[in-house]
Amino acid sequence: MRMIPTLATIEAAAERIRPHVHRTPVLTCQTLNRVSGAEIYFKCENFQKIGAFKARGGVNAVLSLSANELQNGVTTHSSGNHAQAIAYAAGLVGTKAYIVMPRTAPQVKKDAVRGYGAEVIECEPTLDARESTVQQVIEQYGSTMIHPFDDYRVIAGQATAAKELIEDAGLFDIIMAPVGGGGLLSGTALSTHYLSPTTEVIAGEPEGAADAVLSFASGHIEKAPFINTIADGLLTNLGEKTLEIIRLHVKDILLTSDPEIIAAMRLIWERMKIIIEPSCAVPFAALLRNKERFVGKKVGIILTGGNVDLGKLPF
Amino acid sequence: MRMIPTLATIEAAAERIRPHVHRTPVLTCQTLNRVSGAEIYFKCENFQKIGAFKARGGVNAVLSLSANELQNGVTTHSSGNHAQAIAYAAGLVGTKAYIVMPRTAPQVKKDAVRGYGAEVIECEPTLDARESTVQQVIEQYGSTMIHPFDDYRVIAGQATAAKELIEDAGLFDIIMAPVGGGGLLSGTALSTHYLSPTTEVIAGEPEGAADAVLSFASGHIEKAPFINTIADGLLTNLGEKTLEIIRLHVKDILLTSDPEIIAAMRLIWERMKIIIEPSCAVPFAALLRNKERFVGKKVGIILTGGNVDLGKLPF
Repeated sequence: MRMIPTLATIEAAAERIRPHVHRTPVLTCQTLNRVSGAEIYFKCENFQKIGAFKARGGVNAVLSLSANELQNGVTTHSSGNHAQAIAYAAGLVGTKAYIVMPRTAPQVKKDAVRGYGAEVIECEPTLDARESTVQQVIEQYGSTMIHPFDDYRVIAGQATAAKELIEDAGLFDIIMAPVGGGGLLSGTALSTHYLSPTTEVIAGEPEGAADAVLSFASGHIEKAPFINTIADGLLTNLGEKTLEIIRLHVKDILLTSDPEIIAAMRLIWERMKIIIEPSCAVPFAALLRNKERFVGKKVGIILTGGNVDLGKLPF
Repeated sequence: MRMIPTLATIEAAAERIRPHVHRTPVLTCQTLNRVSGAEIYFKCENFQKIGAFKARGGVNAVLSLSANELQNGVTTHSSGNHAQAIAYAAGLVGTKAYIVMPRTAPQVKKDAVRGYGAEVIECEPTLDARESTVQQVIEQYGSTMIHPFDDYRVIAGQATAAKELIEDAGLFDIIMAPVGGGGLLSGTALSTHYLSPTTEVIAGEPEGAADAVLSFASGHIEKAPFINTIADGLLTNLGEKTLEIIRLHVKDILLTSDPEIIAAMRLIWERMKIIIEPSCAVPFAALLRNKERFVGKKVGIILTGGNVDLGKLPF
């Protein structure tokens, strides 16, 4: 796929993945509306297959491959939810998944990926090691690489979350998503642009991984000045494809601090009785930091995932 | 109300409370079905108003009172969710609530009750002190007592949870609820008896508060041999009214240990991404301990509440 996904592309992705992912519920909470002054609709991708929205992009990408491309399996690198998504998707089509993970990734995550029948290939925890290991795997097995976010098939898959949110809860003033590599944010921005063009798309990003806010301003892929945040799903830089879409269709990127992220996460746990991971709390934390911008507005927030280590909670 | 609630009484309760409580969702989880061998439908009262099913009974009881009975306010004793339920219900009809709570109850619970506009009256943490304090409050204010469970209006309110479960997910082989004072269990047994008479109702009870299992066998209200459990919502003995209904319409009461309760709670948190309190995990823990009895069966489980102190988790 060589073009920014059109509405038809996103609709085709929705049809393609429908039998294999949940249409997750949209929840509201009167207490959080009162606390924020906004009218918030939470799209609960923490209830998604594999516990995160990444199932959408992973399944769409794998199911879009030709028999030839699937023949020798698929490969990706990820320490988190994308690894499980590709492992899950490969199982659906009966092909092999080779997942490159840093050897420092939690054992529970490696086990989860293996639980879907995938092979885990460990590498040193550096970007260079990741990329060279992926290259080796592709040369050795002839498998097809699926990038975690800078891939239009992945972006079209992630776009289906915002599509469902708008279908189920109507038009919004603002829709929010967190930004790491930008797969979800760019997909959200595309669906919103096509289905509700007057809605502003606003991202939340941790201060401790503040690359997207720089890239958004400069138009080039920038690195964060430093990496230090509990939102471990949002450490990655943007890619060329996601940056282009984000510059076209995203209104703003708001930063938030780790104490704010933890407080927002705790509020959602305590008041909504649902489990979300720290990265997932970033947009709501950004909203609470910038209340005046959201007060009286109808806001959609994509809750991205619920995969937390209950033995290592920040409260 | 002097008679065991009929189906018409429960239907009237459902109508009465409808504008003030949530019709909570019924969730399923493929992993938990695989782990248990059963087909389980969870009725999510952890998403209910005040975070627990007790809103149903409290609202039904308060809304059933005459203007005369409401005039001088309502009173109850509770250290937990029933206190919040009565405080919430009193607010709905604009009457005063006087809630007797042990002075040792967590500050957060006292604050929650006050947050609904109720007055908290503290007493020593003994049953005698509770009852004498309630008596003093009633004499002083002329307020109307609403017992936490041994009251047919409360039982009829709690019965609406199982009614909705059967309406939304069809007939069951087995429906499960935890048992403390027996308000929820007796209500569940009544709704099931009327709406799905071939369904067995089975309760879960902690080994560390094993009174209901004794009372169920003897037909008299028995005390637990000892009290020592994390399931702090289930410490109470049965009442005359709840015992009678439970003896008529409940099939069995299964015991479970604290380690089993904690493991079941953790499984639900990790796999379903929802927050439940320890008492709420008791039926699922009892099911896992007695798998052979449930394998291949369609089982409804009422998840009773999600009010936990995140600062004091058992894992």
